Amino acid sequence: MDTDGSSSSETVQVRNKKVMLKHHINGLPKESDLHVTTETVVLKVPQGSNTVLVKVITSYGVGRVLNSGHPGYKKGDLVWGTTGSEEYSLITEPETLFKIPDTDVPLSYYLGVLGMPGLTAYVGFYDFCAPKKGENVFISSAFGAVGQLVGQLAKLMGCYVVGSAGSKEKVDLLKNKLGFDDAFNYKEEKNLDAALKRYFPEGIDIFFDNVGGKIIDAVLLNMRLHGRIALCGMVSQYPLDDPEGIKNLMCIIYQRLRVEGFVVFDYFYLFPKFWDFMLPYIREGKIACVEDIAEGLDSCPAALEGLFTGRNLGKKVIIVSQE
Amino acid sequence: MDTDGSSSSETVQVRNKKVMLKHHINGLPKESDLHVTTETVVLKVPQGSNTVLVKVITSYGVGRVLNSGHPGYKKGDLVWGTTGSEEYSLITEPETLFKIPDTDVPLSYYLGVLGMPGLTAYVGFYDFCAPKKGENVFISSAFGAVGQLVGQLAKLMGCYVVGSAGSKEKVDLLKNKLGFDDAFNYKEEKNLDAALKRYFPEGIDIFFDNVGGKIIDAVLLNMRLHGRIALCGMVSQYPLDDPEGIKNLMCIIYQRLRVEGFVVFDYFYLFPKFWDFMLPYIREGKIACVEDIAEGLDSCPAALEGLFTGRNLGKKVIIVSQE
Repeated sequence: MDTDGSSSSETVQVRNKKVMLKHHINGLPKESDLHVTTETVVLKVPQGSNTVLVKVITSYGVGRVLNSGHPGYKKGDLVWGTTGSEEYSLITEPETLFKIPDTDVPLSYYLGVLGMPGLTAYVGFYDFCAPKKGENVFISSAFGAVGQLVGQLAKLMGCYVVGSAGSKEKVDLLKNKLGFDDAFNYKEEKNLDAALKRYFPEGIDIFFDNVGGKIIDAVLLNMRLHGRIALCGMVSQYPLDDPEGIKNLMCIIYQRLRVEGFVVFDYFYLFPKFWDFMLPYIREGKIACVEDIAEGLDSCPAALEGLFTGRNLGKKVIIVSQE
Repeated sequence: MDTDGSSSSETVQVRNKKVMLKHHINGLPKESDLHVTTETVVLKVPQGSNTVLVKVITSYGVGRVLNSGHPGYKKGDLVWGTTGSEEYSLITEPETLFKIPDTDVPLSYYLGVLGMPGLTAYVGFYDFCAPKKGENVFISSAFGAVGQLVGQLAKLMGCYVVGSAGSKEKVDLLKNKLGFDDAFNYKEEKNLDAALKRYFPEGIDIFFDNVGGKIIDAVLLNMRLHGRIALCGMVSQYPLDDPEGIKNLMCIIYQRLRVEGFVVFDYFYLFPKFWDFMLPYIREGKIACVEDIAEGLDSCPAALEGLFTGRNLGKKVIIVSQE
């Protein structure tokens, strides 16, 4: 049996390592909730189907097409999309794949700055925050894959930008590598309202929130007239059976605020426009992309846990294969 | 001493009954927190000032100008604006007054359907709710001065409209007099989420909120994709030292909602446009205005308490003088 996946024989089977849930998860996912298993996969799409078989290179997922029943994809195409955490992935909904338009930047960028997190930052900041030069911008989980881009886009626009993160190392990187005007470690602040008043004595015009919960209450007390709040994620609330209550909604009226939630899946049609916008900044070095790279699918469970414990340092990328 | 206020003598003084606070109020204002007193007022503006002296006809306030140091107002003009709860009112900021443009409708309408509540409904519904024909609209405190107009505007646009109110009488009037598709008494609903699911099995597109607190949490669970929530007031929360916590903000992301707060004072420049829009509907009987009319300033303390206990039936109007 051929196991390297490179043969074009119709009956080639390979071992396919994949990451599975052991059981339904309550609360935060822990490394021990997942396990890595190996199955056998046939390197050919089912006869007559329009599915696409992809060899996953970096997991969730940049890959190269090995075999395709879909007229839009042919063997050798570089793609990214929802591939599953496995070495080979049969894509049953090829409309969720995107061809990679440009290979002069690292392929992993299509998982971060040029992928979903990048588009999230782009749509969330420009469309939902409606930013103006000189405005005061606060970003929670600012060193996350989305937050670090929102901050850099805000700096490019001439805003004053402060981010919160969960470690001294992240705070230092926000200030010294990503060009934030300031940053603070929320874990060291007993009073988030007081912290925000220290960094924004004149108040906040734009809050880009990835966290939810008590930070929203503190921010509401510090918003300026006609401020905008973009709700992008609530990573602090997902594991809670009973979410925290937000008490300061009255500020939405007093300060004439606009609060909007959005989901990046609605904006995938903007990818070509987004790439045209973002690629020049990346090539010119005006946008940095901090990646936290691990080797091998076996590191996937720890990486997932790190997403919720703050251990990952920037966009987490797992290299499954170097092709 | 002349006491009828009709003389043009420079030294005319009259008794001026007014409503005063006895002390700072914690929690809901009660009738006993206020008292009605009588002072003496000179019916002439201070020499050289640009203030305007108004005889208050209906309190907060439609009135007729008695004397004016402001070039924009002359004796006899009908005006409305912030006049204070008294029989005569020296208006030190005449820019807060509005000339009454039309007298073929009851003057009291300039306190309700053609005044601040009317403009609030107009701006809040058209600008912040961005309504479309056929959408599902829910209004809290629907029989209040603002709510009853929002509902009627929504019906004129072809929306499905349900309101909540605090008594059977109000619910009946919403359905039978104001043309709401349905209405319910929130005090009889143990589970607001279940009540909303009963009236909106397909969900809510627009929520116009005058109440705040737990109704927001229930509504968030029932909003449709891309729904809009206009926060106009939070009458349930004003008396609380510790506002209720709202737990379902995650729905703002999942359902891609827009939540906006607004204050009608920002939109006073729209009054002329608003009157052009609203007067034809009133003359044609397409918009009804339910007023709860009381006679005499002495009824003012009870009227204020009624605002917070739900006792008032529609826009509360106190007739201070019939001229």
